[in-house]
Amino acid sequence: MAKASIITIGDEILIGQIINTNSAWIAQKLTSYGIIVDKQVSISDKKEVIFKTIRTELDRCDIVITTGGLGPTSDDNTKAVICDIFNDTLRFDQPSYENIEFLFQVRNRTITERNKQQAMVPSRSIALKNQNGTAPGILYIENDKLFLALPGVPAEMKGIIENSFEPYLLNYLSTHPGEFVLYKTINTAGIFESNLADLIGDPSDFLDKDTTIAFLPNYRGVRLRIGAFKKSYEEAKQTIDKATDYLYQKVGNYIISEGELNLPEILFDLLRQKNKTLSIAESCTGGYLGKEITEISGISQYFMGGFITYSNESKINLLNVNKETIEKYGAVSNQIACEMAQNVRRFFNTDFGISITGIAGPTGGSPDKPVGTVYIGIADNDGVDAFEYHFGENRAINRERAVASAILLLINKLK
Amino acid sequence: MAKASIITIGDEILIGQIINTNSAWIAQKLTSYGIIVDKQVSISDKKEVIFKTIRTELDRCDIVITTGGLGPTSDDNTKAVICDIFNDTLRFDQPSYENIEFLFQVRNRTITERNKQQAMVPSRSIALKNQNGTAPGILYIENDKLFLALPGVPAEMKGIIENSFEPYLLNYLSTHPGEFVLYKTINTAGIFESNLADLIGDPSDFLDKDTTIAFLPNYRGVRLRIGAFKKSYEEAKQTIDKATDYLYQKVGNYIISEGELNLPEILFDLLRQKNKTLSIAESCTGGYLGKEITEISGISQYFMGGFITYSNESKINLLNVNKETIEKYGAVSNQIACEMAQNVRRFFNTDFGISITGIAGPTGGSPDKPVGTVYIGIADNDGVDAFEYHFGENRAINRERAVASAILLLINKLK
Repeated sequence: MAKASIITIGDEILIGQIINTNSAWIAQKLTSYGIIVDKQVSISDKKEVIFKTIRTELDRCDIVITTGGLGPTSDDNTKAVICDIFNDTLRFDQPSYENIEFLFQVRNRTITERNKQQAMVPSRSIALKNQNGTAPGILYIENDKLFLALPGVPAEMKGIIENSFEPYLLNYLSTHPGEFVLYKTINTAGIFESNLADLIGDPSDFLDKDTTIAFLPNYRGVRLRIGAFKKSYEEAKQTIDKATDYLYQKVGNYIISEGELNLPEILFDLLRQKNKTLSIAESCTGGYLGKEITEISGISQYFMGGFITYSNESKINLLNVNKETIEKYGAVSNQIACEMAQNVRRFFNTDFGISITGIAGPTGGSPDKPVGTVYIGIADNDGVDAFEYHFGENRAINRERAVASAILLLINKLK
Repeated sequence: MAKASIITIGDEILIGQIINTNSAWIAQKLTSYGIIVDKQVSISDKKEVIFKTIRTELDRCDIVITTGGLGPTSDDNTKAVICDIFNDTLRFDQPSYENIEFLFQVRNRTITERNKQQAMVPSRSIALKNQNGTAPGILYIENDKLFLALPGVPAEMKGIIENSFEPYLLNYLSTHPGEFVLYKTINTAGIFESNLADLIGDPSDFLDKDTTIAFLPNYRGVRLRIGAFKKSYEEAKQTIDKATDYLYQKVGNYIISEGELNLPEILFDLLRQKNKTLSIAESCTGGYLGKEITEISGISQYFMGGFITYSNESKINLLNVNKETIEKYGAVSNQIACEMAQNVRRFFNTDFGISITGIAGPTGGSPDKPVGTVYIGIADNDGVDAFEYHFGENRAINRERAVASAILLLINKLK
């Protein structure tokens, strides 16, 4: 099947000022269509570099997508380079101009000459409507290849792909049958990568040469990703199913889910199935747990709210945590985690109460309770429990892991 | 000065399963040393692709850094390819093995044959200690170039660079003087990109040919990044200063800060300078505002905590919001935002109370209050005010923008 390359244009990503989320999003999109993403490249906005990179990737791949450099200012060189590469000149595109007019009307702005330039597109290209901005997508279908230039603003880039580009892509794919790639991810927890690999054994024992397995560890566990490159969807599907069965036989005990591992979504599904409500009390995570839980639309039926008790006073005065308990055991303790979970559950009148208290760092640690010590409490009708964790030195990672661990605790309780 | 290329190895990033944060981090690090990051590339973990890409980049650049493919499993091919490229064989590295022993001791695990393999490194390479994992970094200093292979786990990769690689890098740079690149970012707010560009005028009027300006818009404003490529640090610094002065003359009214735009950090600095305390009440953002504010270590002196009142009941029962006000105006209203801000300020006894209530979407909108409608309240000793916002359709973006707007409101109040 079609081979694709994704090019990100602009110094901002190249020098690391922002993280490249566009490439991941486009790669995921293309992969979901069975397209083989062959390369992602980030380059500067210098004309000669853009020219050379697009040319090289067009020679190698069937589909080339660029993001960035389509704006109205002097550092936006992509359009000029495209004209050079395709030996084309600019034309005025009336629909693109009308789109600019519409956007400016809504925002009550006056169109300047610079804005008007955004409606100029290479003459043989198809201008794809940008609902969220002034720069249209630029699409060439030539030499049996697809070339698409998109603006770098994520919402604009995504809108053009989903609303305007996909029909062209589908049409291209339907007229270019061939190899098909299918992926499946199986999530494990509670076992180290190397032990998992030993249990599974030599991959060539159960995978043919067109099928791959990857071990993807992070602190939530190790994910196993199977990839099958086959002549048809059916063949790829069968291969994946066979490999999945094998993995369940070998390491089934450690498998917790399949597909993308979205902890808040798994929690939401379980709360809904069991019809249970939840409230939270956060100290060192400062609202992070609530933020994650409420990423899921519809959670308001099950998640009632919580307390962010960052100071000791607020734990005592608002969450009714016992002052003596804090004095005796410290605010970061098993006892306080239990009180926080029980009290928030009572205040919000929910089935579950979850609490997090810990030392995120980099300061605040002691020999007894070093940075990274976190207690997570979970209260329900049967009582309360708290668990002690030791993460690392890094504030951001400690907070992230505390939140993931709290959600995992409740998931296991609900299962 | 030295030209660098960053290669990310592994299908996980290539097909978009995870976002590539490693490249951005490394690019930022290299840029801070004045090194020109020339390219970032993401490739699959196929041996022949790794081989060809490293070879090409080594030919083009002085410094090549790879991440990924150093793990203990079958999809980890980087080490074998490195031996091919450098015509080298593996040797057992005793310090690396001792590091593995130490890590396993701490975690109470037994070393398997597979783990032991991690201590094998190419014979002419320098094995760089990995304090956070079993795979050492692999460094070659040959043919007047630096080649470094790192594991893909971010904490491991960062640890090796900061604790082990930097002395080698500094030594390389001190013996290779040459061109120097320096960047500066100036943050503006309250003006559109195209209007800003018109006010600033033609860049060639105030920048020489070795100096660039980039316009970087997002919803917080437009950032201007100046880049100077000069023979010395001093020359680059002077050029940047001159361009900065020019920009202050032309668009000084719209400049809000210089350097990286970290809103929670700006807020923290202002709260500290003015010695003011803060509490928050969140509805649709569910804890997101608290999460952002508490990213900053030391904020506990000024941020006391908050309420996550996701349900109406919790707004009424816990935050004492007037039931009649909700019935009359709705929970998403100017009035409720005001009550939430006032009440949380009183409960926590802080100088400021900030509230957010809105319709994050995708459901819950009405013709009167469509998805994306958000009210932000701010209460202090002088009274209370609320502001109405209309963001877009996207839940995640609406929540992000609401949080950024709330922090910006308080920043402006504190200035």
